[in-house]
Amino acid sequence: MQMLTVDLGDRSYPIYIGENLIEQPLLEKHLKGRQVMIVSNETVAPLYLEKLKSQFSAANVDTVILPDGESFKDLEHLNLIFDALLEKRHNRTTTLVALGGGVVGDMTGFAAACYQRGVTFIQVPTTLLSQVDSSVGGKTGVNHPLGKNMIGAFHQPVAVIADTDALNTLPERELSAGLAEVIKYGLIYDAAFFDWLEANMDSLRQRDQAALTQAIHRSCEIKAEVVAQDERESGIRALLNLGHTFGHAIETSQGYGAWLHGEAVGTGMLMAADLSARMGWLCRDDVARIRDLLIAAGLPVVAPKSMTPEEFIRLMAVDKKVLDGRLRLVLMRSIGEAVVTDEVDPVLLNQTLTAESNLGQI
Amino acid sequence: MQMLTVDLGDRSYPIYIGENLIEQPLLEKHLKGRQVMIVSNETVAPLYLEKLKSQFSAANVDTVILPDGESFKDLEHLNLIFDALLEKRHNRTTTLVALGGGVVGDMTGFAAACYQRGVTFIQVPTTLLSQVDSSVGGKTGVNHPLGKNMIGAFHQPVAVIADTDALNTLPERELSAGLAEVIKYGLIYDAAFFDWLEANMDSLRQRDQAALTQAIHRSCEIKAEVVAQDERESGIRALLNLGHTFGHAIETSQGYGAWLHGEAVGTGMLMAADLSARMGWLCRDDVARIRDLLIAAGLPVVAPKSMTPEEFIRLMAVDKKVLDGRLRLVLMRSIGEAVVTDEVDPVLLNQTLTAESNLGQI
Repeated sequence: MQMLTVDLGDRSYPIYIGENLIEQPLLEKHLKGRQVMIVSNETVAPLYLEKLKSQFSAANVDTVILPDGESFKDLEHLNLIFDALLEKRHNRTTTLVALGGGVVGDMTGFAAACYQRGVTFIQVPTTLLSQVDSSVGGKTGVNHPLGKNMIGAFHQPVAVIADTDALNTLPERELSAGLAEVIKYGLIYDAAFFDWLEANMDSLRQRDQAALTQAIHRSCEIKAEVVAQDERESGIRALLNLGHTFGHAIETSQGYGAWLHGEAVGTGMLMAADLSARMGWLCRDDVARIRDLLIAAGLPVVAPKSMTPEEFIRLMAVDKKVLDGRLRLVLMRSIGEAVVTDEVDPVLLNQTLTAESNLGQI
Repeated sequence: MQMLTVDLGDRSYPIYIGENLIEQPLLEKHLKGRQVMIVSNETVAPLYLEKLKSQFSAANVDTVILPDGESFKDLEHLNLIFDALLEKRHNRTTTLVALGGGVVGDMTGFAAACYQRGVTFIQVPTTLLSQVDSSVGGKTGVNHPLGKNMIGAFHQPVAVIADTDALNTLPERELSAGLAEVIKYGLIYDAAFFDWLEANMDSLRQRDQAALTQAIHRSCEIKAEVVAQDERESGIRALLNLGHTFGHAIETSQGYGAWLHGEAVGTGMLMAADLSARMGWLCRDDVARIRDLLIAAGLPVVAPKSMTPEEFIRLMAVDKKVLDGRLRLVLMRSIGEAVVTDEVDPVLLNQTLTAESNLGQI
């Protein structure tokens, strides 16, 4: 087992990474009181719920099972968690435990942020994407029909368990979606890690446990470093949004769940790379390397053909990165170095949107 | 105009108190960006919305008008605020302004806490209750069918305006409800203020502006002192809940809105006083003084006859002050000194609940 610490002063917390951790007694010491509410979904609960419950021998454990999917990440389904907490009379010392992917983690964390104005919570992410991204850093929330993650809170967990065994039951498409965020860390922060990913992508897709552990560890390490520097995203943390403004537009346009978040981010990162090249910041060879690695990871690299540049721009305009009407994007200076800019040339942006909307014109 | 500061370090903020403040240009300097969303209700908006709008000459002002009443303080109506923010493309630099009573303030504050994970907000309370209580201190939230204020956040405003002119349009019953919270400050913190209230209750009910200004100022001052010492309610702030555990049970039992919050708190404070006397902490004469002042303020002093002790205890058990199954109550050592205790004798509590449930047996 490996352990990292997300360093946030008196809100610091550990991330445990390794094989078969769900059954190990790691979490009881992190509980605030004796009440535990495990939140999971219909897909993950049959696989891991009983194993996880066995950790909490001295606590009163209740459960909520949500339907599986991004389309249920809304206020209505969030309310199912509040219903369960109140029906079972959970008080301010309860601990919520998220067992599942990013949707379960985001919803559980947001429920914990709001229930009685804030209770303790723990993340047990079971997808690669949530292990390397959403379970670390304290961003929680739900979607609104008019925008993704528009309703939420910053609320840090007290512990995260990333069990690599859980990835053995992950569908291939979701493994690829998680790899998109892994690639992101190389692109924004660590060129050597990007090189390593080029060399090890096949092993990762074959679920080699050692390779996965290394990829998860380095990804969480980078995310923890960035979050510790900028918890509330006033500066460097925005770099973690590489590909996300384009990606959110794709997700909103297609309806939540049609494209997986990681898939949309993967294509969005390539669009950001393309635009970075048009801005004269990134060389075309690097764009090609990024594209090749995304393809090697099993990810789509072309935005939906149905999306016009106008639709992209309209949907990107409601993104949280927009400040006072000015579009802000994360772009790349080189592989391993990203920057936030609000000086995007609309003509070049339009070229990127046009190119990406048409298969093969990248 | 008087001004107080709630001292919370880099989240400190001013409270402006006085006549005719809604129209004065006090707020523009507190805006974060150029977008403003005023949230009000159907009763208050026709009276003050245009006046308030005139303050924001340089901003883009949008509005949401909610139905009036505690029964609409839920997730469904909260979502109307998010709908408006997203439809009008408000970004992270928007400022939400609550114009109305406690329901509007709590909902607007919670919407501001959650929209894009937190935006700026301002309170313009138009009821006595919200001027002396809910607009100060950063508690925000909505109700759940199984419990009041169970879903919420701590989110401080950047400014509060308490315009005493607004109280001239307040129904008498709501003025009385506000006086319950004013009396509370005397009971928990300031015996001399309680004496002053006994001497000035008639002037207050006749809406003497000088008396009202003094009562609001001292109430906000006490609340600001308490909140500055304990923003997250881990200690002394709990004293502000005097009467609230009993009161919330009444509100939940009768359906939100049947009893006004201040009415339920007033009766709840008398129940707390009665129990304090049974515990041997408060003398019977002081209980009578409290009862007389509540009656002078135009408040009910007997819980609904339909409520049994069993119903009270069941509803009090879901109150947020319950820790690990132990009922915690705010009681009084004397007028002007309150304490939090989890050592309530169930027999004495039952006597209080029985007495209070039967007219005239106090």
